[in-house]
Formats: sequence, C-alpha cells, structure tokens
Amino acid sequence: MGELTIWTYDWVPEGPRGFVRDLRLRWACEEAGLAYKVQTVPFDGRATNHLAHQPFGQVPFLSDGEVEIFESGAGLLHLARKSEKLMPSDPIGQAKTTQWIVAALNSIEMVTVPWWFLKMSGDGDNKLTGWMDMRLGQLEKLLGDREWLVDDRFTAADLLMADVLRVSDVRSFGERPATEAYIKRITERPSFTKARDDQLAHFAASDPKS
Amino acid sequence: MGELTIWTYDWVPEGPRGFVRDLRLRWACEEAGLAYKVQTVPFDGRATNHLAHQPFGQVPFLSDGEVEIFESGAGLLHLARKSEKLMPSDPIGQAKTTQWIVAALNSIEMVTVPWWFLKMSGDGDNKLTGWMDMRLGQLEKLLGDREWLVDDRFTAADLLMADVLRVSDVRSFGERPATEAYIKRITERPSFTKARDDQLAHFAASDPKS
Repeated sequence: MGELTIWTYDWVPEGPRGFVRDLRLRWACEEAGLAYKVQTVPFDGRATNHLAHQPFGQVPFLSDGEVEIFESGAGLLHLARKSEKLMPSDPIGQAKTTQWIVAALNSIEMVTVPWWFLKMSGDGDNKLTGWMDMRLGQLEKLLGDREWLVDDRFTAADLLMADVLRVSDVRSFGERPATEAYIKRITERPSFTKARDDQLAHFAASDPKS
Repeated sequence: MGELTIWTYDWVPEGPRGFVRDLRLRWACEEAGLAYKVQTVPFDGRATNHLAHQPFGQVPFLSDGEVEIFESGAGLLHLARKSEKLMPSDPIGQAKTTQWIVAALNSIEMVTVPWWFLKMSGDGDNKLTGWMDMRLGQLEKLLGDREWLVDDRFTAADLLMADVLRVSDVRSFGERPATEAYIKRITERPSFTKARDDQLAHFAASDPKS
C-alpha cells in the first residue's frame, strides 16, 4: 500500500470553491479514516500543463503508491474498495454501490451539469429543462421511500449523489422535499464539513495577500 | 457464480436499434467468452413498469445469480472483473481501465449526449458546441499517440469509449482522423459485430408480421 495523495489546483477563483471535485476524494478519505496528503498543480496553464496526469486538464487525480487514477468517480471507486465505511465488501453490496455511483455520474450529473451550463450561458429557453425535471422527479420519488441509496447505510454512492445534487442551482430547481432532506442528511456528516472547510482553507491560503 | 442475464426491451423503434445499451454488455460477454442469456421487459409502459429493477425506467440491467446491477457502465465494470480479456488483474491496470470507463461516461458522454439532444431539438445555436469541440479535440490529440486507452491492449474502456463515439452525429462532428481510426479499429472486432447483429435480430423479431 502506498501513500494516498489527492491532487488539486493550487488556487481557483471564489465561485467554484467548496465545489471543486477534489472534495469528493477528501470527503471519502475523511469518512473512511484514510490518511492522505494534498498536492497541487498550477491553475494557470491548466489546459496543457498536467495532461500527462489528467488528459482533459482537470482535477482531481489521485495517487496511491504506484497507482495513479484520474476522474473523481474513478478515484471514489478506488477508495471505496479500501474501506467498508464506503462500500460493503460483499458482491451484492458492491454491485449496488457501483451502480449508484455510475447513476450519479451518468444519469443525474449528465443532465445537471449541461443544464447548469446552458443556464449560465443565459439560455432563457433551456431545452434540457424537461429532461432535468424528469430525472430529478424520478430521484425524488425514490428518495421518498428510503434514507440511503444502498440498503440501510451510508455508502460512497450517497457521498457522490449528494455532491452532485447540492449545487445551488440544482437544489433550487423545483420543490423536492425528499431530495432536500437527503442532501441535508448527507452533508451534515462531519466528514463533509471537514473536507469542505479544508478545501476552502486550501484555496484561500493561495489568495494574494492584501 | 450465477447465470448471467442481460435485460433489455422486448422491442424498440428502428432509430435506436444497434445503439441500445444492452449492446455494451452483450459485446463485453462476447469479448470475454462469458455465457449469457437475454431477457426482456416491455417497451410499452417502460416509464413505470420495471422501476424496481431500473429506477429511471431504462435498460439494460444485468443479473448474475443473486447480484443485480443497473447502469450499463456499472454492468461493464462488473463484467470486467470477471475476465482479463476486459481488464488487467493488477491494481495499476484496473485503475487505468476504471478511470477510462468513468471518463467515457462522465467526461465524454456527459457532453455528447446533451449536445445530440439539443441538436435533435432543432437548436440551431447549440450552446454545447464549444464544450463538445474541446473534449473531442483533447481525445483526438490523445488517440493520435496511442492505439488503446490502457497500455498496449484492448480493454472494456475501449469498448465503452468506442460505443460512446460511434454515434453518427458525434462521428461527423469535425475532422478527427485518429478518433475515426480508433472507432473503426474497435468496432471491427468480431465481438462487436456479433453483439450488434444479435441486437438487431432481437428487436426485428418483435416487429409485427406484415
């Protein structure tokens, strides 16, 4: 086993702070009690300067001794295999956790991120609104019947789904009380607060001194 | 170990035939030489009639004895762990395959599917075009330097990435010779042809007799 290192930018503007996806990996490590370091690549020149580690110029990527892995969802799957606090160790529990991690990435975030992007582009007639409404409605119905995505316990799938859903524009899209209660329940965990506060402090430390 | 069953619709209109995502699982099983059956849920009433198996009313889902798993990407990760023909068994190879499977789902398909959706909606000024151009450009650069996503071999990551990219509208988006050669190389595999032909025959068999 190697040493876990989460790589993120050295700095980002205020807007994305608290939402940069290294938070998903910090949160998972905090939840599981896994020791980790945080290292950085420069935000300036990100489009080209770390393509050898992340081919789209993004963060985070994770290193675990000789293993290096990009995409926050893949890093989360990697961490989940290290701790039963993130994923059950039996095949059925692993399958359920994996399916919900992929659902968060490919059925929910595939709609919420482009919808948000169109909204930010000032598209008054956002053509993804119908799709967004359908997916978030399906999820609302589901979360009305259960507390967690997998069995009767928190898993890495809840961590990821709550992270996808807690974006303020997504959160204010319609009335979804079960989803709102779910987000609140998951993000009240001390592991989330620690991860978010650490990320905020990390980026603030790189602000030019006034 | 249970019996592998891939669940899909009993019928779909001609448009999506050859592209329904059960193909990803059929292809993986063919590639790995895993025995499988195909079973169906009705296309009519799909929005509500199999939510217990797939909470968004979609297909495919996979059953493997007592394990049941939805999301084609999650099913693919499940199958990949069964055969070195789909994923290396060492930790580094597993991390690389997983990261590229997630990249196909969350960095590429997250752009291509909403872009295609806007195009189909008749959106002349498709605001996702810039993002699409950036992501496919980054991938084109990368595929100019390598034959496969992971090391010097085919993996489930190539299967998924090629499936995401082979959609005709995506394929005709700009000139990308390395990507085109990559798609051609991957989809020329007999396992792909078998999976696609089987899917086409499956849906055609349910057409009303004339």
